[in-house]
Amino acid sequence: MTNTIGIISALYARPFTREHFGAFARAKAAGCDFVELLVPEPGELDLEATRKALAGQGLGVALAARVNLQRDLASSDAACHEAGVRYLESCVQIAGRLGATIVGGPLYGAPLVFAGRAPAPVEESERQRRLDRIVDGLRRAGKVAADAGVKLAIEPLNRFETDIANTTGHGLQLVEAVGSPAVGLMLDTFHMNMEDYSITDSIRRAAPHLIHFQACENNRGYVGAGHIDWPDVARTLAAIGYRGAITLEPFRRNDERAGVPLAQWRPPDGSEDAQLAHSVAFLRATLDYAWRQQ
Amino acid sequence: MTNTIGIISALYARPFTREHFGAFARAKAAGCDFVELLVPEPGELDLEATRKALAGQGLGVALAARVNLQRDLASSDAACHEAGVRYLESCVQIAGRLGATIVGGPLYGAPLVFAGRAPAPVEESERQRRLDRIVDGLRRAGKVAADAGVKLAIEPLNRFETDIANTTGHGLQLVEAVGSPAVGLMLDTFHMNMEDYSITDSIRRAAPHLIHFQACENNRGYVGAGHIDWPDVARTLAAIGYRGAITLEPFRRNDERAGVPLAQWRPPDGSEDAQLAHSVAFLRATLDYAWRQQ
Repeated sequence: MTNTIGIISALYARPFTREHFGAFARAKAAGCDFVELLVPEPGELDLEATRKALAGQGLGVALAARVNLQRDLASSDAACHEAGVRYLESCVQIAGRLGATIVGGPLYGAPLVFAGRAPAPVEESERQRRLDRIVDGLRRAGKVAADAGVKLAIEPLNRFETDIANTTGHGLQLVEAVGSPAVGLMLDTFHMNMEDYSITDSIRRAAPHLIHFQACENNRGYVGAGHIDWPDVARTLAAIGYRGAITLEPFRRNDERAGVPLAQWRPPDGSEDAQLAHSVAFLRATLDYAWRQQ
Repeated sequence: MTNTIGIISALYARPFTREHFGAFARAKAAGCDFVELLVPEPGELDLEATRKALAGQGLGVALAARVNLQRDLASSDAACHEAGVRYLESCVQIAGRLGATIVGGPLYGAPLVFAGRAPAPVEESERQRRLDRIVDGLRRAGKVAADAGVKLAIEPLNRFETDIANTTGHGLQLVEAVGSPAVGLMLDTFHMNMEDYSITDSIRRAAPHLIHFQACENNRGYVGAGHIDWPDVARTLAAIGYRGAITLEPFRRNDERAGVPLAQWRPPDGSEDAQLAHSVAFLRATLDYAWRQQ
């Protein structure tokens, strides 16, 4: 077995604070190798206590960065752009203190629906300026990351969440423009299912730059519960020799009533330990079969 | 061949006005049986001229309704709710004048991303009040539709476009609560691919109420270009005996540059006649094979 499998902290709670450390033992019991923590905001988590609590369970850690319009590499507001660079630098520092080597997410900024912004046309000159600002910011943060032995992983999001990088191709354009050894690509199957013509073709195309992976069912639920072809995804990850981490992000709550916002994060209705254990076992099985076929 | 295949008017232009009537001959030449028009806003189209132009090409017509926060059955603002009911009634009148028998779309209202609204938690009492208002409005509009021989088709949209009906199950909850013979369900594979555990299971479940269907590739591009399993979709439509119309909605433009908003409607860069003809032929082939297997 070559890939480690982890779980996003938001499965349990958001914000995730010291009172939720009990989740680490549950993640371990469900078969996880690591936890992907949303990068804690200042004062949200004691980093040394968190590191110890993770180590106490033998769990590794990855980090998921959170951007908004006030810290946004794409912003035409110089202060927001600078705050975006400083935020990424702070993520690298936090990674170092927690022992994480990956900070992933939509690091380029420009959130849409979750910032209450509607998609709107972008003039070609402004499109290029936004990309230039992003590349500049990622190069600067990338230097800090390289010095710290941390990698920044750019995640394409679906068209409703950003208008910068939606497809794997968009993400690769950014990574190649940045050209930093500390800046790579991460892929999330929830977004790929919406935006890429073929999930497996995109994984193959991303191979030289792929440094992190999130496995999410088509409806953001538990891997194995929906219609993504997981054996095919696993065979492709093995075929390109991807030996990195794979994070589960089951955000879909078990509530099928009309009028309940599905895009809104909700706390779990009860323990989802059994469902998580099933998804970890399912994914581990498909990966094991896939690697044996290489 | 049992199903008719049509094309959404927004493929060609939005707004679609008299100067775009040349598109009807192109749609016919591409193999379409009908055009699905966005319901024209007042003054946008001469209805009698449009009817004649469609008839001149031997094309049928269906209508796609457009809601916003000012005409919104879900609204707690009584004026906006009433405007939502009146809008649906006007859609029924327009359908009568154009010779359409289907008016489809997110008739329940509550737009999110395209209205610049972020998803937010909804209190249980407000959730129920919104559904009550929607059901009330659909019953009233349904009476007008029934008298006119028109059917209203409720379309679930993905989680980013509304927080009322995202899944096929949500749509069925509304249709069953309304209980009007003139109010049924429509399904769109773009949204189903994001929200339903299984597209084909959902089609089977929707069978008793399914009155309209939109075939859209996983990334809102041309049917046959992405990863939806179209033979399986066609076999399921045939298996449930769905003999209604199927509309193509290829909104994805051929532009793979980062930073171009994919959720924003854009005019085509040039003629997409050949791509449309391929999609019609592809879908007709899968449907023909499917019906022969019944």
